Order: sequence, then C-alpha cells, then structure tokens
Amino acid sequence: MPAPTLYSQLANHYLHAIEAGTLRCGDRMPSVRTLMERHTVSLSTALQACRHLESRGVLEARPRSGYFVRPRQQAALAPMKEPGAALPDPAQYVGIHQRVSAIIAKSQQSPVAINLAGACGAPELYPTEALQTAMIRALRGNPGLLGRPGPPTPNGDPGFRAAIAKNALWARVTLSADEIIVTHGCIEALNLALRAVTQPGDVVAVESPTFFGLLQILESLGLRALEIPSSPQTGISLEALELAAQSYNDIKAVVVVPNLQNPLGSVMPDRHKEDLVHWCEAQRIPLIEDDTYSALGDADTPLSALKAWDRTGNVIHCASLHKTLAPGMRLGWISAGKWHARVEMLKYAQSRSNESLPQIAVAEFMASGAYERHLRRLRTSLRRQREQVSAAIASYFPAGTRLSQPPGGLALWVEMPGKRSSESLFHAALQAGIRIAPGLMFSNSKRFDHYLRISCGSLYSRELEQGIRKLAGLVEALPHTD
Amino acid sequence: MPAPTLYSQLANHYLHAIEAGTLRCGDRMPSVRTLMERHTVSLSTALQACRHLESRGVLEARPRSGYFVRPRQQAALAPMKEPGAALPDPAQYVGIHQRVSAIIAKSQQSPVAINLAGACGAPELYPTEALQTAMIRALRGNPGLLGRPGPPTPNGDPGFRAAIAKNALWARVTLSADEIIVTHGCIEALNLALRAVTQPGDVVAVESPTFFGLLQILESLGLRALEIPSSPQTGISLEALELAAQSYNDIKAVVVVPNLQNPLGSVMPDRHKEDLVHWCEAQRIPLIEDDTYSALGDADTPLSALKAWDRTGNVIHCASLHKTLAPGMRLGWISAGKWHARVEMLKYAQSRSNESLPQIAVAEFMASGAYERHLRRLRTSLRRQREQVSAAIASYFPAGTRLSQPPGGLALWVEMPGKRSSESLFHAALQAGIRIAPGLMFSNSKRFDHYLRISCGSLYSRELEQGIRKLAGLVEALPHTD
Repeated sequence: MPAPTLYSQLANHYLHAIEAGTLRCGDRMPSVRTLMERHTVSLSTALQACRHLESRGVLEARPRSGYFVRPRQQAALAPMKEPGAALPDPAQYVGIHQRVSAIIAKSQQSPVAINLAGACGAPELYPTEALQTAMIRALRGNPGLLGRPGPPTPNGDPGFRAAIAKNALWARVTLSADEIIVTHGCIEALNLALRAVTQPGDVVAVESPTFFGLLQILESLGLRALEIPSSPQTGISLEALELAAQSYNDIKAVVVVPNLQNPLGSVMPDRHKEDLVHWCEAQRIPLIEDDTYSALGDADTPLSALKAWDRTGNVIHCASLHKTLAPGMRLGWISAGKWHARVEMLKYAQSRSNESLPQIAVAEFMASGAYERHLRRLRTSLRRQREQVSAAIASYFPAGTRLSQPPGGLALWVEMPGKRSSESLFHAALQAGIRIAPGLMFSNSKRFDHYLRISCGSLYSRELEQGIRKLAGLVEALPHTD
Repeated sequence: MPAPTLYSQLANHYLHAIEAGTLRCGDRMPSVRTLMERHTVSLSTALQACRHLESRGVLEARPRSGYFVRPRQQAALAPMKEPGAALPDPAQYVGIHQRVSAIIAKSQQSPVAINLAGACGAPELYPTEALQTAMIRALRGNPGLLGRPGPPTPNGDPGFRAAIAKNALWARVTLSADEIIVTHGCIEALNLALRAVTQPGDVVAVESPTFFGLLQILESLGLRALEIPSSPQTGISLEALELAAQSYNDIKAVVVVPNLQNPLGSVMPDRHKEDLVHWCEAQRIPLIEDDTYSALGDADTPLSALKAWDRTGNVIHCASLHKTLAPGMRLGWISAGKWHARVEMLKYAQSRSNESLPQIAVAEFMASGAYERHLRRLRTSLRRQREQVSAAIASYFPAGTRLSQPPGGLALWVEMPGKRSSESLFHAALQAGIRIAPGLMFSNSKRFDHYLRISCGSLYSRELEQGIRKLAGLVEALPHTD
C-alpha cells in the first residue's frame, strides 16, 4: 500500500474534524491561504485537499466565499430508485384535472401555517423593491402608456425580447429577438406550442412523474398523455421513449423539462439532450421543452437548453421569469422554430400582445446586470434552503424514506417507505395546518401516491423545521406495509 | 288646422335660426332660463320646445351643459341599406387569418400620418394619469406583490371582481363577484367561451359583417363561421338566424355583439335581445355575447346586455375595459353561466390567474367613482368626434356614399358607391400615409369589399380632416361601376 499523499493526509484531517462535529454543516473551511500557512503545504496541495473533499460531497465551493461543510448524508435517506424500463401505461387523459383541482381547491380553502406545496420561492427571495422601482420608472417615463394598445411590435416589447435573447445565451441558446414571442407565463407558451403541433385526440409523450400543470393542459386540449419513465437523476428515459414510439406510432409531440425537472429535480446530461434532439428530429416528432428552471442550478455553469442542439427548428423552447425573477408577473416566452408563424397567429388570436408595462420594467432591470446578481443570490439561498429541508427530513422522517438530491431548483421529491399514501397524508397535514403537494398530482396514474413534493422555497425557520417534524409524525402514523 | 302651440312656435323660431346658419353645429342653445326670460314663456314651454328639437335630431342634450346644435344630416349621405333576408353562405373558416394578418402586417410596417384604422380611442381620451397614480399606489401599498404568485383567489382579485359585478348593474346584469373570471381582455374571454361549448369542426353563427378578431379566433380553434346577415340599425337578423338553424342543424354556438357592434355600430333593440336569449335557450344553443362597447352609448341610459334576460345560465357574457378605460391594460372578464366550472378549468390551464397589480389599481379607480365620471367625458368626446368625422365624410366623399349613424362607440361603417374596392383603397391610402380598415377584414366572404370601417377614436384636427379629404379623393379615383 503506497504512502498516503500529502493532500489526502490533509483531507483526512479535516474529514475527521467534520465527522467529530468540530466543523459542522454550514461552517466555513479555513481558506486555502490559511491551510497553506497552518499546515505548511503548497497552494497546490491545499487546493487538491479541498477539491478532494468537494468531490466526495463533504465540502462545497461557494463563489467568492470559499469552501463550506455540506450537510451529511443521513443514514435514513437512501437515494431515489431508478424507474423500471417497462413500457409506459397506455396513453390517457381522463381525470387528472378533477383530482388536481380538488386538491388545489381544498388547499386554498384551508388556513395553513406551513406551506410546503408552493411552486415559487418566498417573496423575500425576489428583488421586489427593485422591480417596483423599475415599474414606477417605466410608468413615469412612458406617459400615456396605459392609454395605448400593446407594445409597438405585436410579439412583445422590443427591449424585453432583446434582453431575453441575450439571456438565452447563458443556456447556450442563440436566438434573435425576432424569434421570441412574449406570453403569459410558460403556461401560455406550452399551450401555444401544443396547439401548434397537435390536434385533439393526439398522443403526447411526457415525463413520469411530471408537473401537474402540463397534465391539465393536455387534458384541456383533449390530448392524451403518454407517461415515459423518468430518472430522478437523468430525466426522461430515452430507451423507454424509443420503446414507446415503437408501440405507439402516433406520438405527435414530446414535452420535457430538461433541467431541474418538476417534481424530480433531474437534469438531463448533455449527451442525453443531444440524443433526444436528434432522435426527435429523425422521427419528425416536435420536441417541446419547458426551460423554466435552468437558471436555478447550484453551479455557476448554466444548464443547457435542448434548443442549443436544435439545427432544424424542431425544438420549441418555452420559458418564463416566474420562478427566477418575479412570481407576481406573468412574463413567459416561446421560441417556436419551424412553427413560429403558426404560434404567432395562435397567440394573437388567443390573447393579443402582453401588456407593455411589465416588459419595459423588466427589460431595464435585466439590462442593468441586476438580474445576474439576483440570480447568484437566489441560487445560494435555494441551495441552503434545500439543504436545511433535506436535513430536517433526514432527521425526522421514518427510516426507509428516500429523497431526491437535485443540483438546484425549488423542491425535493420524497418517497415514503411502506407504500404510505400521500393522499391520506395531504388531508391529515392540511388538518394540522401544513400544505404539501401529494405525489398523485404528478401522474394520470396513481403510481406516485407514496411520493410527495416538498417545496424548499420558504425561508427556513424554527417554525418550518417544527412543521416538517410534525409532518414526519403524520407520515409515521399512516397505515403502511413495512 | 289648429293654431300652433306655443312650444312649437318657439321651436320653429330656433329651427329657422339653425337653418339660416345663425346658430351653427356645435353652438350652445340659449339656456332654458334664458328662453323663459327672452320669450316670456313658462319653464314647461321652454323645455318642451327644446325636447321637440331634440326629438327631431336638431338639438342634443349634454349632461349639465344644456342643449347644443347637432350637425345637419348631409344630403350626400344615405343611411345604410338593410341586408337581404337570404340564406347565409355556407359556413367556412379558411383564409381569413392570412388575409387579415397580411393587412395588419402591412399596416404596421408602413409609416402613417393619419390612422383611421385604430380600434381604440386616442390615449388622450383615457385617464392615464389617474391610472398611473393608482398603479403606483397599488405598488407602494402592496410591498412584495411582485414576489407573490397571482391574486389570492384564482379567478381574479376579489376587489376587482366586486367592482366589475357592481358595474355590470349598469347593463342591467346582476352578477355576484364569484361568477366572474378575470381574463386577458375580451379576446381571451371569447376563446374560453368558445372552447367551453364547441369542438373543432363545429359551426358557430356570427354576425355578418363582424369583428375580424372573432373570425380569427374561430379559425384558430378550427371552428366554422356561419355568417348571419345583420342590420346596421338592429344587429343580427333573428329571421335569418332561424332560417340558418333550419338548414344547419348543427349550430353549436351563437356569438353576437349586441351593443354598438363592430363594425356596424348597431344596437339590438331590447325586444330582439330578449327574443334571441329565449330562442337560443329553447334551441339549446349556447349564446355568447361580446359586450365590450355598451358603456360607450351616447345616451346616459346604459345599453342592456343579453345576460340581463338570462335565467338558465345559457348566456356567456364576455367584456373588457380595453376600449372604455385603458387600451394599455388587458383587463377582460367572463361570466360563463352553466359553463363556469369548465371555463375556470380552461382559464387555469391556459394562462393561470391574471396579474394582481392592474386589477388592484383599477378596482380602486372604479370604487372612487372616477370611472363613471371618465365614461361621461369619453362618451361626449366620442360623440363629438363621430359627428366631426361624419361631417367630413359627408362633405368630401363621392355622392352615393352611405354611412352608419351609430348611437355611440368608436367607429363608422362606410359603403362606397359604385362597388369601389376597399382592398385597392387600403393600399392606395397606405401609400398616402393613411391607415384604414378595409371591409374585407370583416367577413370570410368578400361581400363587404366596398365597405370600410373608419375609426373616430383620434382627436379631431385640421390634419385629420385633411386626411379624410385626401382619402375621399382616393375613393373618387378608384375604378367603379357608377
């Protein structure tokens, strides 16, 4: 056995300190300079030691702040299982709306102290004061704006579209402002995309589990959802999709959330993205991406959109600022490739141009560089909140609970042990003043009834931790097969 | 022959003065008090004389300002013809979008000095300063608003819905706030209404001519428009509709603009409204009304919505503030009767709740009574502008021109003599820096090619008059069959 290298000795030293609790979750590691001085090692050795601990998930690097101790993997928490490679259920569309809307209606009628079901961050995480100032400046700087119909170009304010196009470069997408049509959130963009490429009765392949809003859109348009097994790590299974295409030769569109999928938190590896784009192109199946979350990845390296690999206009890119900048504004957009003219017509006939005011205000905000600074802060906050919520779940939930570990985003996907029912949990939690999103909202089947989506958007507090503890008690008490 | 009454003597005296040009169009009549003193007559006689001249169309009453001399009926202008009672064309849907969007695109690319094609009033006619103040107050009074998703109730801000419900009483419609779903303008409301009651391929009866936006909506939803002959005075022909229903037993909805129809300016008499509501009810055909214009009638007596006669929830009421309050805000709403739950689902799936901010601001504005005061001013301005544009058309357009005389609203419908083509006029006018809406935008057929819609929304000026004069010269020069 070779002698341990200098850097691994140093790394082990700090690993012991962390295991002993001398350095605790969230503590800052000594700086590289301090390590060099304290242990008389070279810069290279100090750095190597930190990187080694980072690669093992013990430390994490925060830009401009150094290395910090990450929460420990809890013994109670196993990683999520990969889905079986079976053929998906037959395509279906009946029922999801009623189920989902009953849950939403019941949620909204009940007073809640702890909201773990939200799909956005807490208001405090967004730059509301700066946006308010930008709105007031836009109002004062454009007298008569409220008296004039729409923006000067029907697809949206030119400045806003230019800002969005510039911003898309982060996700490695090159768009001109002319290719962008502003919509009422990503929801309207997805509606337009699906209306552009399908007819009622058509089959659309989606991830399973997926965002319930997408299932509702499909149902409202009379489309059938073909749910493709998806991995909590790598997203939609390309093998399962190919298998499904062989069995159903009438798939008219594929819709995916490639980055930080809702609810799984999965990120498709770039190779999968490229393969999916090319496969859809070869099969002549339009590929629709919902790229709402790509700016919320932990890493400063942006996550790539599918559109980055699109060379034939077969990818329809949909996104919004609803989760990243301002939940109170409905600013989305669509870049529809080959279907641009059709989407333009559908948008005009469906709701005309979006109002100018929010577009002008946000264009100014984005041009100032404030958006990038805000995103860095938001990513850091969300990562911390996710870690805190994960740690609380790990501490309090029953043994055998499985938890996603998404590299960004707003939510965790939790599998309860012993086939406990999230529907039962939903009702029990609501009675206790806690709102959750039960797993059965995320599929037309009941396959995910023993899962739940836990939002990490709220600011972490003692009350929130107590809420999770109370929720864990309710989970524990549910009938189960263990 | 009985001796003329005192009041008719007095009336004739002023009629002569007007015919002689002593009192001219727009001049103010002496006040009732002045008449009493000058002619030593009773209050009752002075009032009767004025009312007599008003009933003959010589004077008009303006609230709190007294009586004014109305423009004379021009000899050159015949009233619009009633439509023939023939069976409508077969239902169709192909082509209107391309035609309309080509016209709109060409309009927008060309620089224009005179815009006679606008569908709203000039920005100066709207209370933009007061709305701006209300928006700023709403922003400051609700910190964090831009960071929170949607209004507290998913169908719209409770205060705004209450204000709309209160306001609907003017059109004799009794609604509770809970029956109202806020939409992105009347356009989205009409989309939702049609999606709620039809399937692609269905036949929908509409007025002919009708608003091109409606024809585009039908085409985008794959619906077929059955165009029912409509009168410039009384709107849709109920006889033609009944005849059509006998021939097409698959009419799945009727869509009408009962008040100040676009482009005709017709107002359905209350008896027609009642008959249409009951006929649709008996035939089990959903009746959709676009009630965008009812607040723009000249008279202070509001025009009734069809919904006022609805007792079974068969009428879907759609409206907006886009023409009456703020063209720069997309605030519409729908009250969908029997289809409330389905429309609620479709709206949620299509675009989620409208943003809170404009709703909060406008609710405050409406609650203050400022909306009613604004509407009185707007009605007076629009009436004056319509009279001025009518007078200019009468002076300059070729003999044989026919002109609608709508009792309110934003536009005039003009028939050119000698079957001159509005399409040719559109291109010639655009080259001369004048934008018009050619008649062929208002039907799937080319039946209205020798008509045009002239907007009266712009402030009247010497330049505008010169524009109409120049346009008249272009009309004169068009090939014609006279």
